Amino acid sequence: MVNRQIAVIGGREEPESVLAVAQKLGMEIGKRGLILVCGGMGGVMEAACRGAKAAGGTTVGILPVSGLDQGNPYLDIVIPTGLGDARNAVLINSVRAVIAVGGRYGTLSEIAFALARGLPVASISSWEIDPAVYPARDALDAVEYVMKRM
Amino acid sequence: MVNRQIAVIGGREEPESVLAVAQKLGMEIGKRGLILVCGGMGGVMEAACRGAKAAGGTTVGILPVSGLDQGNPYLDIVIPTGLGDARNAVLINSVRAVIAVGGRYGTLSEIAFALARGLPVASISSWEIDPAVYPARDALDAVEYVMKRM
Amino acid sequence: MVNRQIAVIGGREEPESVLAVAQKLGMEIGKRGLILVCGGMGGVMEAACRGAKAAGGTTVGILPVSGLDQGNPYLDIVIPTGLGDARNAVLINSVRAVIAVGGRYGTLSEIAFALARGLPVASISSWEIDPAVYPARDALDAVEYVMKRM
Amino acid sequence: MVNRQIAVIGGREEPESVLAVAQKLGMEIGKRGLILVCGGMGGVMEAACRGAKAAGGTTVGILPVSGLDQGNPYLDIVIPTGLGDARNAVLINSVRAVIAVGGRYGTLSEIAFALARGLPVASISSWEIDPAVYPARDALDAVEYVMKRM
Repeated sequence: MVNRQIAVIGGREEPESVLAVAQKLGMEIGKRGLILVCGGMGGVMEAACRGAKAAGGTTVGILPVSGLDQGNPYLDIVIPTGLGDARNAVLINSVRAVIAVGGRYGTLSEIAFALARGLPVASISSWEIDPAVYPARDALDAVEYVMKRM
Repeated sequence: MVNRQIAVIGGREEPESVLAVAQKLGMEIGKRGLILVCGGMGGVMEAACRGAKAAGGTTVGILPVSGLDQGNPYLDIVIPTGLGDARNAVLINSVRAVIAVGGRYGTLSEIAFALARGLPVASISSWEIDPAVYPARDALDAVEYVMKRM
Repeated sequence: MVNRQIAVIGGREEPESVLAVAQKLGMEIGKRGLILVCGGMGGVMEAACRGAKAAGGTTVGILPVSGLDQGNPYLDIVIPTGLGDARNAVLINSVRAVIAVGGRYGTLSEIAFALARGLPVASISSWEIDPAVYPARDALDAVEYVMKRM
Repeated sequence: MVNRQIAVIGGREEPESVLAVAQKLGMEIGKRGLILVCGGMGGVMEAACRGAKAAGGTTVGILPVSGLDQGNPYLDIVIPTGLGDARNAVLINSVRAVIAVGGRYGTLSEIAFALARGLPVASISSWEIDPAVYPARDALDAVEYVMKRM
């Protein structure tokens, strides 16, 4: 079995246009039978999960907090790590590729962990601090880029 | 949605009789539509996952190691935390009830975390160090005990 | 250099008689030039640190919370892990021996991690769930027991 | 008591010129009575600890691995977390300011966590991905910058 877990990362507070990209990303991931792994909270994470569920996909939330009920309502599997910021490392350990949408320093830490592991990373309106990060045009471009490299 | 994640914990090296109980436990969990969460490695964890998959259930492995390919072959979702022993706390944070089968000190630490959180805990051939741990007769008894209290 | 870090573990809420034992323990540890490592919070942890500082020793607190100012006032070094319960594993990884004074399930999880690592463990009014835990008569007996085995 | 813990972060493999800066940094930190906190391994971490000890300072290593003997030889306090990459978050939680010297993606993740917490960050030959990171001329400039803001 080839593990097909892929992360969508990004901020909790983003404008509608960014959330729309995240939702589209979730749909593209869900309809391809990939498993969407995210931080499980609101904003980009929730929008991506909503999209994945609409497309019949599976969602996993790896939360920084410790309550099973503290994730967004579109999670099939909830992992409330209780680890705070350290959960960002656990999240990146759990995937074969990463797509970043918006986000600030938390997202940057996750991109850094992904690059340290040599994972393919695509970015939409997010950090492009390194040639190893692919600046994707849109959701479809990002998914196709990482799928070829997983 | 009510979260239905339940943990089966126990040792990596156990006699066949204990593994048979773990497999039966996995089947009872799987056929009830509960999600089986475990440490994702061999022994009791693998036997329980095999049982859950045979019954059409869903399995999640929260590994102490950091490789996506290091879990047992019956995992639907793999969370390779890379946290070592600290993953035991993450595992217990992720469930509403715990069933222990055999196991040694690692299992004891998980039972302790579960009791600290006030979760229902059933034990089969495992630690019964506290009145709060229910000494179950068999797999069915254990599942029925914790389901009533989740 | 031989690492001389030793843990005192135990509950946040304990009667005066138990806190007095913890303080004595801290003094015995401090005057021997051992480094006292603990969970950094109140109760047994604070009493042991107070004793160690009174004897001119060094104290380290490995906190479950993430604030540098959230530990007890007798800490020389503060490690606010932000890991919640998972910090118990980090604490036990950081020492060569463990002395438990009182405590409940959190303390039990730490004893379990210590036994899993094969560390010497002495217990005063705490869990004695295993022949590998030495039931010490008092603070002096506990310190002498673990020092011979570090 | 004002907590005076400060982090030096950076790569395990760096040219001699970068290690010399790290050692100078350790000396400046040690002679000011600040406590040097680092990842505890080789390269920049070891050079900084060597400098701090030469100046009579105190050093703390927060290791990704789980062995008490796996840190560099200049550590007064060893915290072998066993957390892998997740220890980067614990390290940043433990300080009031961060100075980065060289380094790659692991260092970037730590800078990201520091910015997320609003800590002062100075960089020497390291990532300057954000206006919030101060590009220091040398060790002395970096220490003076962060000390004013701790």
